[in-house]
Amino acid sequence: MPSYDWERSLTDLKELADLTGGPEGARRLAWSEDWRTAREWLLKKLEETDASVERDVAGNLWATVPGESEKIVVVGSHIDAVPHGGWLDGCLGVCAALEVLRAHKGETPKVTLKLIDWADEEGARFGRSLLGSSAAAGTLVPDEVRHLKDAQGITLPDALAENGVDLDTMGEAELPEIAAYLELHIEQGPRLEEAGKPAAAVIGCFGVERHSITFTGKASHAGSTPMNLRRDAFLAAARFGLAARESAIERGGVATIGTVTAEPGIPTIINQRCEVTLDQRAFTPEQLKDMLADVKAAADRIADEDGVSVEWKRIWQIDPIPFDSRLVDLAAQAVGEITGDEDPPRLPSGALHDAAEVARRYPTVMVFSSSIDGVSHNPTEDTKEEDLRVALRAYGRLYDLTAGMISEP
Amino acid sequence: MPSYDWERSLTDLKELADLTGGPEGARRLAWSEDWRTAREWLLKKLEETDASVERDVAGNLWATVPGESEKIVVVGSHIDAVPHGGWLDGCLGVCAALEVLRAHKGETPKVTLKLIDWADEEGARFGRSLLGSSAAAGTLVPDEVRHLKDAQGITLPDALAENGVDLDTMGEAELPEIAAYLELHIEQGPRLEEAGKPAAAVIGCFGVERHSITFTGKASHAGSTPMNLRRDAFLAAARFGLAARESAIERGGVATIGTVTAEPGIPTIINQRCEVTLDQRAFTPEQLKDMLADVKAAADRIADEDGVSVEWKRIWQIDPIPFDSRLVDLAAQAVGEITGDEDPPRLPSGALHDAAEVARRYPTVMVFSSSIDGVSHNPTEDTKEEDLRVALRAYGRLYDLTAGMISEP
Repeated sequence: MPSYDWERSLTDLKELADLTGGPEGARRLAWSEDWRTAREWLLKKLEETDASVERDVAGNLWATVPGESEKIVVVGSHIDAVPHGGWLDGCLGVCAALEVLRAHKGETPKVTLKLIDWADEEGARFGRSLLGSSAAAGTLVPDEVRHLKDAQGITLPDALAENGVDLDTMGEAELPEIAAYLELHIEQGPRLEEAGKPAAAVIGCFGVERHSITFTGKASHAGSTPMNLRRDAFLAAARFGLAARESAIERGGVATIGTVTAEPGIPTIINQRCEVTLDQRAFTPEQLKDMLADVKAAADRIADEDGVSVEWKRIWQIDPIPFDSRLVDLAAQAVGEITGDEDPPRLPSGALHDAAEVARRYPTVMVFSSSIDGVSHNPTEDTKEEDLRVALRAYGRLYDLTAGMISEP
Repeated sequence: MPSYDWERSLTDLKELADLTGGPEGARRLAWSEDWRTAREWLLKKLEETDASVERDVAGNLWATVPGESEKIVVVGSHIDAVPHGGWLDGCLGVCAALEVLRAHKGETPKVTLKLIDWADEEGARFGRSLLGSSAAAGTLVPDEVRHLKDAQGITLPDALAENGVDLDTMGEAELPEIAAYLELHIEQGPRLEEAGKPAAAVIGCFGVERHSITFTGKASHAGSTPMNLRRDAFLAAARFGLAARESAIERGGVATIGTVTAEPGIPTIINQRCEVTLDQRAFTPEQLKDMLADVKAAADRIADEDGVSVEWKRIWQIDPIPFDSRLVDLAAQAVGEITGDEDPPRLPSGALHDAAEVARRYPTVMVFSSSIDGVSHNPTEDTKEEDLRVALRAYGRLYDLTAGMISEP
């Protein structure tokens, strides 16, 4: 049995936060200089292991320790962060995986052990999440993302090229044949804390429908245009956002208006154009389908009533993805062994994870730690240290149980 | 009776548009080189009259023709424009006034006739409308505008100095004792066109309450935060915008959400902060007061229900300003005489005008021409030529009626 020292993981996390974070939060935006700094830090840490390191053509970082068996268990997560992000989102799983490799220093693991640091999980700069993992899983369609630009007008292909990645060939990155993929992550939501639980087995990921919706009305003078002759694009978007909330509540999913751009955006002019992003999520395909149908109908009705036109662009879509039931049982067993909980929590993830891309093809499971107040994607993101320790220990136990199961003849 | 040639005014307008406009719209931004070019053009035109010209310390241009009576009738408007502005906003009234002076060439008017070209009516560069007229009317407070900067970071005092105007002394500009102030302007709204009317008497200017309102909730993850645990600042602002619309409709005013800033503005994060500007206008102080009370109550209720906080900042306020009832009657009479309409339209102006500053102290009225599709502050701004002719003739008739009334013993 490997001997884990989870205190080292906590030290690593604080070191990384000092290097690429601060009072303003994490700065590890994918494809940026700070992200490359975090990667270099990780490479340095991997020198403490027996792993050989390579970067695939999608920019994902792999570190491999050959085992007694050629069967592969992958551990990892992502080191990139949203702007002003937290100190745990992504890097908790990377640091836990690092410790799994480090604990095998000088010994041959039962299974071939691979650490992965996925590139651009967050999609915070260009609006496309899971970029590296989808490229490797074969689900990335370059033409769907080629036009994406960041706030400075830089295109995704140009930002990739700056990092030695070619959008048109990144899909040639391939997943190895994976026997089990294990990822530790913070919940990023308030459910575990509400329930008074430090950690949970994750049963799968919500599906997502993400669209950009543009309402177009007419710019006219705020003083001289009577209310009944207005075609106000912002107010149409406002009604749309409220309809999306109502539908999510009714259907048991979640829906969020994230980006809002109202133009011309001048106090004395009625907005001609309002573009919003809508992110809808649910755990069953039926819920998600109903939610999308609800808001499409609402948008048409609102456009008709408010005299504006509406245009939809799909940014991204992913079906709900249940995790592997045997691995979910092992994860629950591992959490139960550490906490003494006879019925350890099992819950779906509302957030997306690279695990969802891997789970399309290979057995996958995740472990969640609690999150204080559910806060994530924010400098104040945090988890009680005692909960972090429980989650790290449960993750190590999950790895041991999995490696044992996989390596059985 | 002076003999007006309104075709000359149409020719003047086109000449000015050729000189300081084009396919991208008018370029007569106040205090800019193009604005000074327009002013030089006007000075050249004024040489065709008997007027003596002077610029006051606020940068307003006055041209005076002494009359039989020392009582003063002022005609005019503003030659400055918003960027990419239209060919009529402001200069229609200046060109009409020019023709009034030109028609008196070689004869002594019954009353002392003054043309005014106000400086910086639009406030498009620094965000402060009616700068020149408020300085002359004694309502400009230098310290309230001293900090204003344009998009290039140039301060208002520096831009003024470049044009020989000193912010601290411009308030010494004084209005003469005005017996009547008459201004012709395009409606900049769709009401006359909707009603099939070419021109109208304007009964006064809407009062304005302009505020910046900030809702503050909590940034959290779009996937992992259940609907019932959200504090979404954007959705609170959306509800607020709809409440403002409802109140304006109910009270008979107008209300506009112009600027909208949602932060962090990322597709996968619930917005923590949403700042909007609200511009409310109405013709009576009671309406305006009720509208403001409505939205203040709505904001508090929404903040309470949605778990967000709300903060108000007043940007600007002006009371409703009714025009002089005798002059309004004369203006309606003039429009009726030209159109044959027995009940010529009388309507309030939703847009602000320099006339509102003058009306605080002296008898004032305006005439509106229609606007095609209500469009203004845009290169496509236009008015049917036949409606322009009607409005110009009505304005000339209004001047004659006014001069007759004023000069009666």
